[in-house]
Amino acid sequence: MRVGSSADVRALARAISSVEEQRPAALDLLRAAFGRAGTATVIGLTGPPGSGKSSLVDRLVEGYRGEGCRVGVVAVDPSSAFSGGAILGDRIRMLRHAQDDDVFIRSMATRGHLGGLAQSTNDVVDLIDAARYDPILVETVGVGQDEIEVVRTADVVVVVLVPGMGDDIQAIKAGILEIADLFVINKSDLPGADKLEAELRTMLELGASPSRPRPAILRTVAVRGEGIDGLREAARAFLASAGRERRAERRRERAEARLRAVLSERVMRWVVEHVLDGEGWNGVVEQIASRQVDPYSAAEKLIERLEVR
Amino acid sequence: MRVGSSADVRALARAISSVEEQRPAALDLLRAAFGRAGTATVIGLTGPPGSGKSSLVDRLVEGYRGEGCRVGVVAVDPSSAFSGGAILGDRIRMLRHAQDDDVFIRSMATRGHLGGLAQSTNDVVDLIDAARYDPILVETVGVGQDEIEVVRTADVVVVVLVPGMGDDIQAIKAGILEIADLFVINKSDLPGADKLEAELRTMLELGASPSRPRPAILRTVAVRGEGIDGLREAARAFLASAGRERRAERRRERAEARLRAVLSERVMRWVVEHVLDGEGWNGVVEQIASRQVDPYSAAEKLIERLEVR
Repeated sequence: MRVGSSADVRALARAISSVEEQRPAALDLLRAAFGRAGTATVIGLTGPPGSGKSSLVDRLVEGYRGEGCRVGVVAVDPSSAFSGGAILGDRIRMLRHAQDDDVFIRSMATRGHLGGLAQSTNDVVDLIDAARYDPILVETVGVGQDEIEVVRTADVVVVVLVPGMGDDIQAIKAGILEIADLFVINKSDLPGADKLEAELRTMLELGASPSRPRPAILRTVAVRGEGIDGLREAARAFLASAGRERRAERRRERAEARLRAVLSERVMRWVVEHVLDGEGWNGVVEQIASRQVDPYSAAEKLIERLEVR
Repeated sequence: MRVGSSADVRALARAISSVEEQRPAALDLLRAAFGRAGTATVIGLTGPPGSGKSSLVDRLVEGYRGEGCRVGVVAVDPSSAFSGGAILGDRIRMLRHAQDDDVFIRSMATRGHLGGLAQSTNDVVDLIDAARYDPILVETVGVGQDEIEVVRTADVVVVVLVPGMGDDIQAIKAGILEIADLFVINKSDLPGADKLEAELRTMLELGASPSRPRPAILRTVAVRGEGIDGLREAARAFLASAGRERRAERRRERAEARLRAVLSERVMRWVVEHVLDGEGWNGVVEQIASRQVDPYSAAEKLIERLEVR
């Protein structure tokens, strides 16, 4: 794919739509992209709603553009599960970067994503990567399990917090400790930034793992563009210090998650088609619904019929 | 299981822990419970954080206790994904109902739940159902995809909103339209309740489905106990009007989701063990990580080796 023209941008957008809508051509597009992809640095950003992730991403895009990079952005919004079109993250950024063919922005909702949101995010990232955007920023709305899965295997995972979250930090701290490579305290001009940083440091100390470098804590005021250069620098430093080995490990994790997601979806389809026809499936479901058979025994009985060629 | 004594409550709590920790005895416990369960009415409650679901559940428990019911509560908190112990919903309620053996309250986080949170919630509901609690209230924290899956197949799905959510209602409206049987505007003494109700009615009109009864909209002020009798009455009316057929359909959906979750997890385990040994699996993962093979082709090759006995 030639890069840089509006026509190419439209071609990429169409390719992503094909994949999202599971059109017949999607699989070939994904296979071709998979071979070409794998060079871009993927930066995952997650954090609670209201932490200013969108502004932060906007400023990061600006910064990377200043370095001459072509930048991809994927905004993932699992909360609009059934809407079939996430628009949340785009609102502001589109205005600023819409005319720039070297910035590619795409929102994703959950609808119809076989194999889960994390899997389809990886697919979309591959397509953007294959079109030679680098870095690619993957931003999530919220910090649920879905979102954690989406960013967990990025090359750098940035967790965005804001002062004044109160008890909320308690609810999310454990998940965050495990996935964050960098912490950003955004809106750090608000009261409570020092307190938040102190709490964070305590938590990191308690949850410290010898096998994992302690995440840096940075401060930004994204709406005014403050601290953004520092954040880009910290991401670069993390990647450099983490070294090739760590990056390879992260990519192995991502590969395994992808294989698992694709295989699980296909194997299930195969089992439903070959071990049971449609009628048989409904019959088993009826037996479970009427509590004649429990789902564990039903599953076991089906699996007993599998063989390897 | 005899009911009503503290010893029985402890036995039930232990059974749930066995299941959550996937102890060897768990499967037998679940199979036994599955056969005994299926009589309790399951009431799902979901809505954005801060909508006062916990207070609402507390008041509902009080109301159902007044009718002489033994009440189960499952508070599901996917956001504490890695913490291994959700405590959020319990804080207040435990104080009030802790001494009452006829109220059973349990919190769930996501950690280690094979087959997903919705599946393990169903397991826990079965255990509580088999111990003869009825109704069972399933409350979620937040309104992500996980939470929607958790409450979607309850006998009655209650969506809790609050005035002054602003744009947030836009983000969640589509999912909510599809799953809600009843809407509750909680904290309805706050300014904006009329506006919210008007918006909701417009949305329901636009998204109306002829095959589905239009959800009622109720108002509550849970902290003062206002509107709770009305909510219980509306839930009862919904169940009565929806009729046996609708209830059977919901239970069929739940049965199918359960079979799919259990089967998918077991089939994957079987494939990894039998089609590939551990070494083989790692080899395929390596090939994907180094982009020699794409996950779609890898999955296809594995599936080609499956046969039905």
